[in-house]
Amino acid sequence: MSAELPIGVFDSGVGGLTVVKEIQDLLPHESIIYLGDTARVPYGNKSPETIQEYAIQITRFLVAKKVKAVVVACNTATAYSLVRLRELFFLPILGVIEPGVGAALEANCGGTIGIIGTVGTIQSHAYQNALLQAKPELKIQALATPLLVPLVEEDWLEHPATDLILKEYLKVMIQEQVDTLVLGCTHYPLLKRRLQEIVQGRMKLVDSAENMAIALQRTLKSHQLLNPCHEMGTTQIYVTDFSPRFQALAERFLKRSIGHLERITLG
Amino acid sequence: MSAELPIGVFDSGVGGLTVVKEIQDLLPHESIIYLGDTARVPYGNKSPETIQEYAIQITRFLVAKKVKAVVVACNTATAYSLVRLRELFFLPILGVIEPGVGAALEANCGGTIGIIGTVGTIQSHAYQNALLQAKPELKIQALATPLLVPLVEEDWLEHPATDLILKEYLKVMIQEQVDTLVLGCTHYPLLKRRLQEIVQGRMKLVDSAENMAIALQRTLKSHQLLNPCHEMGTTQIYVTDFSPRFQALAERFLKRSIGHLERITLG
Repeated sequence: MSAELPIGVFDSGVGGLTVVKEIQDLLPHESIIYLGDTARVPYGNKSPETIQEYAIQITRFLVAKKVKAVVVACNTATAYSLVRLRELFFLPILGVIEPGVGAALEANCGGTIGIIGTVGTIQSHAYQNALLQAKPELKIQALATPLLVPLVEEDWLEHPATDLILKEYLKVMIQEQVDTLVLGCTHYPLLKRRLQEIVQGRMKLVDSAENMAIALQRTLKSHQLLNPCHEMGTTQIYVTDFSPRFQALAERFLKRSIGHLERITLG
Repeated sequence: MSAELPIGVFDSGVGGLTVVKEIQDLLPHESIIYLGDTARVPYGNKSPETIQEYAIQITRFLVAKKVKAVVVACNTATAYSLVRLRELFFLPILGVIEPGVGAALEANCGGTIGIIGTVGTIQSHAYQNALLQAKPELKIQALATPLLVPLVEEDWLEHPATDLILKEYLKVMIQEQVDTLVLGCTHYPLLKRRLQEIVQGRMKLVDSAENMAIALQRTLKSHQLLNPCHEMGTTQIYVTDFSPRFQALAERFLKRSIGHLERITLG
């Protein structure tokens, strides 16, 4: 495996690009191949078997593109397919849940750990199970916050309605004396600043995207796969369906122009 | 075809139950068989061919249950499959778009007609095309309002955030002097009271669910298919996947207990 190869990243849609953004910032010399499975988004309401099949198809595509590692930047796909992908493919495969859980355990000072995410992620119990496996006596408060993805996609980050909605969702977290809040959805990093203003130091926010990039750096380093080039890496984005909103959303998530999108067919 | 047979109604999920509620209110002696394709919801981001195939599978299921008419209570399925369903099945098949368009044209006094709906519905141009086909000189203002479905599903109808969001979405409708606003999504009837408070008589609201029930009554009458029984009709609900939220949402949408849900497999 050559260290100069790109990293493969996938998500059911546009959300995983917050992970790409963190990788670009932390590891600017790495090239990235991103696949957004926009034809089949959202994964949250599909069966575990179907999601596993999709994840296998996508990983096969990324491996054929000669990536040196695969990042599953989708909470649902991580919950249901990570173990299977590691059985089938022999390269480093990272999921988005472990790094968030690790960072939450590190940040936690004995208080309750809060988790917010989509209905699918919260119902999968993936974060809850991973936290309890590491520390069975943990107090956990998990809450599905389904309004946050559309708020981010509408770009209403500065809208007063967003403040009201975040405060409503955080009420229970404050009541339950949460001291560590896991942002368990790849869309949520865009709300981090607003969240920080609302919690005002009462709880630490754990951003899965940020921790995913740190975990990737650690993994690449330990396998001597960090790219030795001094040029900036490139990012190529593939989608399984064109949607007029994808490009605009992608550029907001990455805070840069994304250039040419390529559509592919899977399955 | 016997007038005592039930009416089949389907939607990609729970939303079509607002149509069921209107049918129950207007035609209390009719029995209803409802299918929510919860395993494959949402339809909005799927290809027209896929949606057509789903609609055919569901109609086949309803016809096998011996319904006397089929109501497509899903905007996306109506947009992409109504014509094909009418070619394939020989019983009255009603879509949710025509009645809304008819009512909007009737209500309109020469001003702009506004349409709000999901991203999928607005992008399908189904309402816009149907309106322009009837009246090519119409001024139309269509707006995707993706926050409204999760607001309804969260049951935040009375929350101050909902008011802020509705006011934001309606800004452009007020600016463009919309005098008739089509609620182009089966979830939106639950927001009608709030919307009415905000528009304060400046525009007429056209509720597709309500107009769908009126259109159904007219169709059944003209085919002599109105149920002559004097007993109250029953409603049987089928889903393609169980979801913990479906039952609670369904009972809110129907304003009554729904009893036993049955899961079926299609395709």
